[in-house]
Amino acid sequence: MILFQCDYNEGAHPRVLEKLVETNLDQTVGYGEDEHCAHAAELIRKACGDDSLAVHFLVGGTQANMTVIAAALRPHQGVIAAQTGHINGHETGAVESTGHKVLALPQKNGKIDASQVAELCEAHLHDASFEHTVQPKMVYISNPTEYGTLYTGKELEELSAVCRRYGLYLFLDGARLGYGLAAADNELNLPLIARCCDVFYIGGTKVGALFGEAVVMSNEELKKDFRYLIKQKGGMLAKGRLLGVQFETLFEDDLYLEISRHADRLADKLREAFVEAGFPMLVESRTNQIFPILPDTILEKLGHDYGYTWQERVDETHSAVRFCTSWATREENVDRLIADLKRLALSV
Amino acid sequence: MILFQCDYNEGAHPRVLEKLVETNLDQTVGYGEDEHCAHAAELIRKACGDDSLAVHFLVGGTQANMTVIAAALRPHQGVIAAQTGHINGHETGAVESTGHKVLALPQKNGKIDASQVAELCEAHLHDASFEHTVQPKMVYISNPTEYGTLYTGKELEELSAVCRRYGLYLFLDGARLGYGLAAADNELNLPLIARCCDVFYIGGTKVGALFGEAVVMSNEELKKDFRYLIKQKGGMLAKGRLLGVQFETLFEDDLYLEISRHADRLADKLREAFVEAGFPMLVESRTNQIFPILPDTILEKLGHDYGYTWQERVDETHSAVRFCTSWATREENVDRLIADLKRLALSV
Amino acid sequence: MILFQCDYNEGAHPRVLEKLVETNLDQTVGYGEDEHCAHAAELIRKACGDDSLAVHFLVGGTQANMTVIAAALRPHQGVIAAQTGHINGHETGAVESTGHKVLALPQKNGKIDASQVAELCEAHLHDASFEHTVQPKMVYISNPTEYGTLYTGKELEELSAVCRRYGLYLFLDGARLGYGLAAADNELNLPLIARCCDVFYIGGTKVGALFGEAVVMSNEELKKDFRYLIKQKGGMLAKGRLLGVQFETLFEDDLYLEISRHADRLADKLREAFVEAGFPMLVESRTNQIFPILPDTILEKLGHDYGYTWQERVDETHSAVRFCTSWATREENVDRLIADLKRLALSV
Amino acid sequence: MILFQCDYNEGAHPRVLEKLVETNLDQTVGYGEDEHCAHAAELIRKACGDDSLAVHFLVGGTQANMTVIAAALRPHQGVIAAQTGHINGHETGAVESTGHKVLALPQKNGKIDASQVAELCEAHLHDASFEHTVQPKMVYISNPTEYGTLYTGKELEELSAVCRRYGLYLFLDGARLGYGLAAADNELNLPLIARCCDVFYIGGTKVGALFGEAVVMSNEELKKDFRYLIKQKGGMLAKGRLLGVQFETLFEDDLYLEISRHADRLADKLREAFVEAGFPMLVESRTNQIFPILPDTILEKLGHDYGYTWQERVDETHSAVRFCTSWATREENVDRLIADLKRLALSV
Repeated sequence: MILFQCDYNEGAHPRVLEKLVETNLDQTVGYGEDEHCAHAAELIRKACGDDSLAVHFLVGGTQANMTVIAAALRPHQGVIAAQTGHINGHETGAVESTGHKVLALPQKNGKIDASQVAELCEAHLHDASFEHTVQPKMVYISNPTEYGTLYTGKELEELSAVCRRYGLYLFLDGARLGYGLAAADNELNLPLIARCCDVFYIGGTKVGALFGEAVVMSNEELKKDFRYLIKQKGGMLAKGRLLGVQFETLFEDDLYLEISRHADRLADKLREAFVEAGFPMLVESRTNQIFPILPDTILEKLGHDYGYTWQERVDETHSAVRFCTSWATREENVDRLIADLKRLALSV
Repeated sequence: MILFQCDYNEGAHPRVLEKLVETNLDQTVGYGEDEHCAHAAELIRKACGDDSLAVHFLVGGTQANMTVIAAALRPHQGVIAAQTGHINGHETGAVESTGHKVLALPQKNGKIDASQVAELCEAHLHDASFEHTVQPKMVYISNPTEYGTLYTGKELEELSAVCRRYGLYLFLDGARLGYGLAAADNELNLPLIARCCDVFYIGGTKVGALFGEAVVMSNEELKKDFRYLIKQKGGMLAKGRLLGVQFETLFEDDLYLEISRHADRLADKLREAFVEAGFPMLVESRTNQIFPILPDTILEKLGHDYGYTWQERVDETHSAVRFCTSWATREENVDRLIADLKRLALSV
Repeated sequence: MILFQCDYNEGAHPRVLEKLVETNLDQTVGYGEDEHCAHAAELIRKACGDDSLAVHFLVGGTQANMTVIAAALRPHQGVIAAQTGHINGHETGAVESTGHKVLALPQKNGKIDASQVAELCEAHLHDASFEHTVQPKMVYISNPTEYGTLYTGKELEELSAVCRRYGLYLFLDGARLGYGLAAADNELNLPLIARCCDVFYIGGTKVGALFGEAVVMSNEELKKDFRYLIKQKGGMLAKGRLLGVQFETLFEDDLYLEISRHADRLADKLREAFVEAGFPMLVESRTNQIFPILPDTILEKLGHDYGYTWQERVDETHSAVRFCTSWATREENVDRLIADLKRLALSV
Repeated sequence: MILFQCDYNEGAHPRVLEKLVETNLDQTVGYGEDEHCAHAAELIRKACGDDSLAVHFLVGGTQANMTVIAAALRPHQGVIAAQTGHINGHETGAVESTGHKVLALPQKNGKIDASQVAELCEAHLHDASFEHTVQPKMVYISNPTEYGTLYTGKELEELSAVCRRYGLYLFLDGARLGYGLAAADNELNLPLIARCCDVFYIGGTKVGALFGEAVVMSNEELKKDFRYLIKQKGGMLAKGRLLGVQFETLFEDDLYLEISRHADRLADKLREAFVEAGFPMLVESRTNQIFPILPDTILEKLGHDYGYTWQERVDETHSAVRFCTSWATREENVDRLIADLKRLALSV
């Protein structure tokens, strides 16, 4: 059985693990106040081209999302997100558990745009009973999105502008950021993201680390007292240096992007094979998640040897599913899958 | 200026106020443990035909909704409601502020149906990552709905059945329940509602009281420790007897329904006048809220003398608005409005 | 049975009720945006000698406390209060239910002082793991306290100064403020309180109104968006004018203080009678709550005809109890109690 | 500089790390549903002698505490803990952030006893306004406590009995459980703890793992839906197998206790050296944390070469501090500290 259902089926990139082994018995102080965290933060600031950024390391994505959002909002404020945004549907109401409504907007390929945000804000401002509705105060986007798609530079800059116009924070969930930055059609880069967003995070869990996300903040209001929030929400690792060591390794040279490119290349290869075999994509994307539409009969057969995730029913006999590659995916496994796919396609 | 924009423009029905004056200097114990509350609860139990019901008096609707929902749900559970449900859009995220997601469903005339609930529950049960999504545990409906419409007996019984099948609580928000029960096309009655719902409330604020809602519970799980929750959420009135006295008066004889019938009759009269004058309704209903669609030019003129609420834009030159009657509406004011309306309609 | 156990055994002062009756069928807009609320706020601003104050009317004390505190604090911040503070022990954890810890300090006669606040803040600042402890951000005091005692002018000014030094908000719970302002040994007045506190409230529920508290804010940060919070926490009365009308009446002339003086005078009379009869006070105070220490045998007999609240056990045969007077207390009832007390004291 | 200030200055025990390296590129499903987690849970159930226990792996201690408590309590319920309990003072109000009050009791050597719990419960039950106070529903203890002390078998059984009498859950925080079980004066064992408690956790972070705590539940009410809560509170690790692999290694043979014994033995050695040198202990204990009282002058000198934690001021010239050993402490470092200590003691 070869697993393609997600990008966290394996442990860490060998170089990350080596560094953990190498530093294992060193003594450091706890809670992220060690030199590895300081160094990793420095490397990330440099990659973002901004010395004034605050960088914090949290254990996981749900935690990063809920901690950032809870830190940013007052009780009557909510966060705008795509209907398909991770915080809206796949975190067991973590945001609501901190008291805040997710203001869900219709999405297109997993994305929302500046005009939707403007429309919602205008409607709020002109509602005679505006104090009876949740005040929009933050926009949450994910890049790559839950559909593997990417925001263009223009889209991100427009979202940033609309947020500034209406006094909203812009928050980018980069759980798979590496796979976005390394994609063939990517237009973004870290300095641009840091300039456009008030806060974003660089995902480690899905991109080479055992676990960990690096939260990056440019907005001074958000920086204030953030470590209290990390502690309160359960995200302050006693051995914080584990996170520092991992991100140090990923950002010391081009490792983070290099391993992301590997995954994207294999996803491209797999995507082309699906299309060649006659199976269209639910959504066009060039990152590490692909969403082919297949006959249920073929899916059933593929399922004996390969793990994938069911996404949605397309018609009575076809479903869209998700295949993921990652930094850890072996090309030989992709090739084997492609071969089996071709065989099955011929047999239809 | 005559106000028709809501059903809480005046104080209380004169008989309610008289009773408050009459008992004003009597001494009673506090926090709803007095004889008036006990008597009012007894009258409501009798009207519902069930001696085992728990009855609690709360100050207002948002409070009743948030307290009931917070009392019923564990942290990972959410409440299903129509997209247009009051808890979803007009309570500044009160439900979310207690940690729970509102699982909003598309509505039809302000209503949701049993099949939608079943579909959502089935999807949750069969989702491989069900623990990553909010667990549905309650269904919230309002009757009359925010559009003034009513559930039929069959619709309510089917919702009740689907809730029992999937282990959900059924909660009916009856902020305007009187206007529902008194409507020409009403099929429900208190005993049926008490049998079908785990908890519901009988609105006083909009139906003859200065303020106050009577929460009625049949489900033993929900009854447990509910007074702690009322206190914690700020809804336990020190002079609880004020609520008891008001509901006593409303339920001592047929007063609650009698004054509701008055409002519904005047709404019917107004509705017919709109239709006769050539203005269609956004939604068909027979309760105290009507939603005519009018040319913006006429609305502008009407607005000089009459208060109404803007509801939604229908096309470039027409809007739907809301006119409400209530127990306090004077027929002469309705007649005046009708006369002006006719005049304006002719001038178009 | 004559009830002395609290100051909310009756309804409202007759003049308040008359005004409610008089305005009952007037039409006003809802949610506190009517002229009565505007006028009442104006009267309170004038009484406080500060035109820039924000004034909001809420239904009750627990609600006022939780709404103000939830509006003021970020998630990692807590509120300092006396161990005996109402928010710490008698509101079913309402403050905690909004996510905030009450940082309880030892009290003396129900009061805390500036040096205790300074000490706690210094300890927090110098704690190496300060981010692992709740950040103090507000001081809550009640005046009169839960023991009926009063802050002196000097004590209040020192608390105000220490709060400003450490960046804390000062919040005064004035559920019984009238009885404090009217007390023989009172040193405070509304302008002083408004200057010293960032936010405070003037209690109506216990001082002549059917219900209602007037929250007064001087701090601009706290004023921002407060009405959203009132709505979210369930405290925005649909018929907001009921609160406006009541506070208008209480503040139109000297009524609020006049009826408070009545209660304090009767409490003084009762207090002297207890002391003369040989029963000491648990705490010295001159407001409407008195805490005599009596033999259990006498308490048992008194309990047949008079309501009081048990406070605490003093020794094996004596308990401290609470007797309250209020604006509604009749002097003849106080006299009857005194006569019975003398009789029982002689029989010991 | 040699660090003795805590028991998380190093990474993981080498065998734990080896196993992580060895399994690194294996593919497993995510979120703790893999075979390593299943196997680790099985080993823990076996060690506890109870096949019916539910075992869940969480990332850290604050997270385990807040998730267990939030899962167990309804909104009006609170958790009883020692004033010095970790949840009361060192988790930035994490419990309160989920809406619950910590009901703090005075402690003796970091412990609370059954009679205190009974007294609090009786007081609640007999309080006339019990619904105005938080309902006690859980008892939280830590073993070893924050002072390194241990509950005796009798103490734990009495706490368990009092909890069952009053319908409370008993929750034992075992962040340092290994150091307790391995201590010279320990009376507890896992089967006893599992029988006495409704829920407890076995700490990995401080006892040989990189991070991770194993939550063990016997009470069926608590087991229900617990994984939803883990996800919502941000504690569900995508690569859950990391936790499984670590606990597998710790519980495959006697490793967990073996490495704990090492730490306790070195703490004993250090403790004796302090006492022999004339420095008394603040609290008597036999686990890996010791709290000597030393002259500030000596502390200042020791601080140049050794890390310790300041605990509390004892008098004008003496302070109590904390030294910790752990599974990773090298005996040569302890010996060096002892030699320096002797030298400094002579110089006084």
